[in-house]
Formats: sequence, structure tokens, C-alpha cells
Amino acid sequence: MIEDKNRPSTPLSELGEFKLIEHLTQYFSLKNPSTKKGISDDAAVLNFGDDEVVVSTDLLVEGVHFDLSYMPLKHLGYKAIMVNLSDIYAMNAQATQVIVSIAVSSRFPLEALEELYAGIKMATEIYGVDLVGGDTTSSTTGLLISVTAIGKASDDKVVYRKGAKPNDLLVVSGDLGGAYLGLQVLEREKAVFKVNPNLQPDLEPYTYIVGRQLKPEARKDIVELLQALNVKPTSMIDISDGLSSEIIHLCKQSDVGCDLYEAKIPLDPQVISTCEEFNLDSTTVALNGGEDYELLFTISQEDYSKIKGNPNLTVIGYMKEKSEGAHLVTRANTKIPLKAQGWKNFEG
Amino acid sequence: MIEDKNRPSTPLSELGEFKLIEHLTQYFSLKNPSTKKGISDDAAVLNFGDDEVVVSTDLLVEGVHFDLSYMPLKHLGYKAIMVNLSDIYAMNAQATQVIVSIAVSSRFPLEALEELYAGIKMATEIYGVDLVGGDTTSSTTGLLISVTAIGKASDDKVVYRKGAKPNDLLVVSGDLGGAYLGLQVLEREKAVFKVNPNLQPDLEPYTYIVGRQLKPEARKDIVELLQALNVKPTSMIDISDGLSSEIIHLCKQSDVGCDLYEAKIPLDPQVISTCEEFNLDSTTVALNGGEDYELLFTISQEDYSKIKGNPNLTVIGYMKEKSEGAHLVTRANTKIPLKAQGWKNFEG
Repeated sequence: MIEDKNRPSTPLSELGEFKLIEHLTQYFSLKNPSTKKGISDDAAVLNFGDDEVVVSTDLLVEGVHFDLSYMPLKHLGYKAIMVNLSDIYAMNAQATQVIVSIAVSSRFPLEALEELYAGIKMATEIYGVDLVGGDTTSSTTGLLISVTAIGKASDDKVVYRKGAKPNDLLVVSGDLGGAYLGLQVLEREKAVFKVNPNLQPDLEPYTYIVGRQLKPEARKDIVELLQALNVKPTSMIDISDGLSSEIIHLCKQSDVGCDLYEAKIPLDPQVISTCEEFNLDSTTVALNGGEDYELLFTISQEDYSKIKGNPNLTVIGYMKEKSEGAHLVTRANTKIPLKAQGWKNFEG
Repeated sequence: MIEDKNRPSTPLSELGEFKLIEHLTQYFSLKNPSTKKGISDDAAVLNFGDDEVVVSTDLLVEGVHFDLSYMPLKHLGYKAIMVNLSDIYAMNAQATQVIVSIAVSSRFPLEALEELYAGIKMATEIYGVDLVGGDTTSSTTGLLISVTAIGKASDDKVVYRKGAKPNDLLVVSGDLGGAYLGLQVLEREKAVFKVNPNLQPDLEPYTYIVGRQLKPEARKDIVELLQALNVKPTSMIDISDGLSSEIIHLCKQSDVGCDLYEAKIPLDPQVISTCEEFNLDSTTVALNGGEDYELLFTISQEDYSKIKGNPNLTVIGYMKEKSEGAHLVTRANTKIPLKAQGWKNFEG
């Protein structure tokens, strides 16, 4: 009960999320034969028999990850599941179960939680996963959702962040930047609403990007597509923090470099028009925006013919030797080093 | 962004934790063949091959489940793991992995989290489990810890809450009430400290019960003991909410009744003396105290000779037909219906 005023004190803002986990878990060792992969990928990989078991977890905190003034609770429940399934698919695995825990303050009535669970239920039904557990408790403020997702894959199917080789093609599913821009639109409408509560927001021109923010879909279909095309990526990650940061993860864990071509980054027309409206650079938005939950992966060049022309997949670059570093090759053909912006929750 | 003022509004305090989970998940169905048991036991049971995979999760919230003014962070880390391993052992399974997520406000320096993880590490080492994942994020207030524990057991070894039969013996490990009384002592010392910060608390006479509160041990040894004795319980649960509430869980899920004998409830001498000092009834404390993390289980009478005389195990009652209900048989030989006190976090 006596506080030692002389203790060292390092503000958490000095570390990012990745550094923090790395720092806190650096002296932990793995002891169980059933543990095949611990921390450092999208999900842990366990083996209890025939298939590999893949486990991933995420915390979503009100005021940090979501704002209930424009995020309907049903969408929030849906999104909380998507965020986690996305990690399972990023292992090239099939999602099978989820566990959902919530901490909630008494300002939420039961009906609010029913809305939340309606979204969770819709997600589990559409994606064919079972809700198998959880904990509910009170919180002193706000709402917190903790989701753990479990999946499976045969040993030879699991794809890690590690495994990309120089000359592999860098491929992304869908298009990028929409979720971030959707958030900008919602933030703007919220500010307008605060000034004049009678003004109803017109979100019609932004349907796609607002949908990307409020109701993202995890790319289960891409895992199935790759299976059907008989393509096994050499490395894979999901895009939660932004393309730039995820490329750096793949490079770092695979010990390779990368050239990313600005002109190849897939953008929806609504992303381009909204960037113009907000006076934002669309490449910057795609690189650092985050929350798109697309899959980013590498394939060997011999698999190129299998994915060529598929509307869901875009080749956006090549992996290089590690010594060459990770760069953006601009439309003007200049090379700019990629930087991880990513996660800034502990700042400010 | 428009709030509907006419929505129905049911305060969460009207439901308990169990009712809330039950209510929110009532329309969820299980679809995956790998899901053998979903919500409604200490842990979910999954099967991906040879062994059953057992998964359980708990949220610990500052100001609700712990008070950092007397709970050292290292102990908190240790306890957070124990709470979850206890659920795995309550399935008669072997704990193999844990996933730890934390949400933390910026008032915590890195060194505080290092302390927390030192406790987590100690727990994983002593209990032989691997830390395989997690998420760290900022919170707007305080500290929240979400732990998911994973374990395994062969199909024929898993013990559920369901399975007790009339005439089975009700058995508990260790002794009860200590953790709750330890909390009372700590709360009292905190109040004293607030009035006079120069007064150092003398916890010497309360070492055992304060230890039960601050550094509980999950009963891995009991699972191993039962294995060695060749006893498979017919049903099992861990005591997190208090003996009374856990007995009611076993009865409800096994469709049986129970006679619990007051005179048989195992109490440490320090529990008895502290109850006298605090003017508390020791039976009430043992029935409703909670947080003891002992195992409560039923065995068929033919296994009695195997556990008889074991200092770790105490027979405290008999299971009855459902129609006879669940009762405490007092020392005066009167029968009082057992009530679930348990979890009151949403109240007040």
C-alpha cells in the first residue's frame, strides 16, 4: 500500500503495439508439443491431432476503436467478429468457433446488448462459425468487446507471415482505403450534427466507403478462391493497420525486401472521388488507412497464370532481396521507403 | 445518429451474469462438427483430431474484479491466469496454452505492465502452459485483462457439469471461504490506511487467507490426483462464485438434487478465527464467498474407497433426486434451501 515514488516510469506512448507485446513477452518460452506457433503471426497455431488449430484474439474498446454515436451496435457486433475471422483467414485456415466476452457499463440497457448480439449472430451465421463461450461483466465506463476466434487447417495448408521469397509476387484482394475514408465521412457528419442536430446527414454518395467502415467483410471467399485455384501463398497477412505496415511485417518476418507499385494499388472510384473532396492523397490513404480487412499475400511467379485476370486479386508488387529494402515505386518512377504508420492508440 | 427515446430499456441489474449470457446467446446454434460443447460449462470442448480441445475465457476489470491499491500487479497477473486454468481443470483437462489481452490507460507506465507480465510468466512456468497470443490496446480508464485458456483431454476423460447421478458423493478439494475473508481483511486495512497513511498494516495473522485472495492456485494437482487414483468424476465445476452457486449449477445441469452437510464443509482454522473476529458466520462465508478456485465434483459411491482419507478431498454431501431439491443440512439437522448468491457485479 506504500507507493514507491522513485520507480522508473516509461510512458506507453514510447512503444507501439507490436513493440509492447514483443517487450512484454520476450522472456516467455514455449513448452507444449501442441504449440506450433505462439505470438508473432495473425494467429497462434496449435496441434491436437489431425488438423492445426488456429487461434486469434482482439480487443475492441469504446472511445478507442469505435464511436457509438455513428456505429450502430449491430454493426459493431458484426465487425468485432469480422476483425477476428480476418486473422484466421490470413492463416489460410477455415474459421470454426468464436468466443465473445464483453465488459459493459450500466448505462447500456439490455436492448443495446441484444442489438450487439444480433450483429454477432448474423456474422456467425453468414460465416458458418459457432459461438462457444464468453464472459460478461460490468465495466466502470463504456463498452469493451474481446473476441477470440478459432479455426483449423491441415498442416500443409497453413500460411504464415514468414515464407515470402525474393521475386514472389505481392497480391492484394479487393480495394484499399475505403474504410478509412468512410470514417472521415462519419466524423465529419458527426461534427455537423453537433452544430445542428436537425440536419440529417446525407451519406448517399458515400455508401460504399461508409459500408467498408461500418460493416467490413472478412475475406473467407479469398481463402476458398485460392484453394479452388490451387494456389498456396508463400506468406499472408490481413490488412488491419494499413498496407504499408502490413508489407513491412511480411518483409521483416520473411527476411525479404519489396517494391510496391503505386499505380497498381486498387482503389474504388468512390475512394478516389472522396479523396479529392477531402483533399487527401489516395495513395497515402491506401498505405496508412487501415481497417480494410483485405488479404495481402505473396505467391511464387509460377502461380501467376492461375490468378491472372481474377477481378478479386491485384498484383501490386514484387518481393526483393532484404538488402534492397521495402519501397513504394511512385507513378513518376521514384522510390520512397515504406514506413509503418499503423497503430497509434497510445499516443495523445 | 438520432436516438430513439421510446426504445425499451431493461437495466442489466435485473439479470445476473448467467441469465445475461443465456439470454443473449439463446438463438445461437452450433454448426461445426468440431464443436462438441459450446456455452454452458466451464469451457467449450472442440475436437480437431485425437484429443478434445477445451477453451475457456474470463475478463477481469479494475474496480470490478480487483483493486490495485492492495493487489500487486504481479499477483494480479498470476491470478488472471489461475482463474482461467481453474476452468480448464474443472473439465478434467490438462491446460496447455493461454492468450492474454489487456486494455490499459496511459496512467500505467511500462514498468507496471512488466510487473503484470512477470506474474503471468510465473504462472505459465509453474503450470506448464504456453502464452501463444494476445492483444494490447489503450483504454479510456483503468486496466482490463482478458484471458483465454486452452487445454486438452482425451474424449473419455472430459468431465462436464452435467453427469451427476442421485446417490453420487459431492466432493470438494482444499478448504473454503479463505479468499473472501482475505478480501475483507484487505478492505479493512485499506480503510485504516486511508485514515492514517503512516500506520503499516499487520497482515501477519492473516497470511493464509490473504494469500488465498491475492495468490490463488488452480487445482492442477487435483486433476492429476484423480487420474492417479483412477477416479473419473461424474460432474465437475470450479468454485469461483461460492459453493452454493456452484452446487446449484451442478444440480441444474445434471437434473439432480443435493444434500450438503454444514458440518462437513472444510474450513481452515484461520477462516474460523477471522470469522469470529469479523462477526461473520463461517458457513455463510464458505457458501457465498467465492474466489476459492477449488474443484467441486461428484463421484459414484463405488469410488469412495479410492478417495477416502485423502487430506486434499472432503466429501460434503450426496446428490439426490431432482424433486428433492438442493439443501444445506445444518448442524442442528434442519434443511435450508441453497440459494445462488454468486455474481452481483451489475448491481448497485
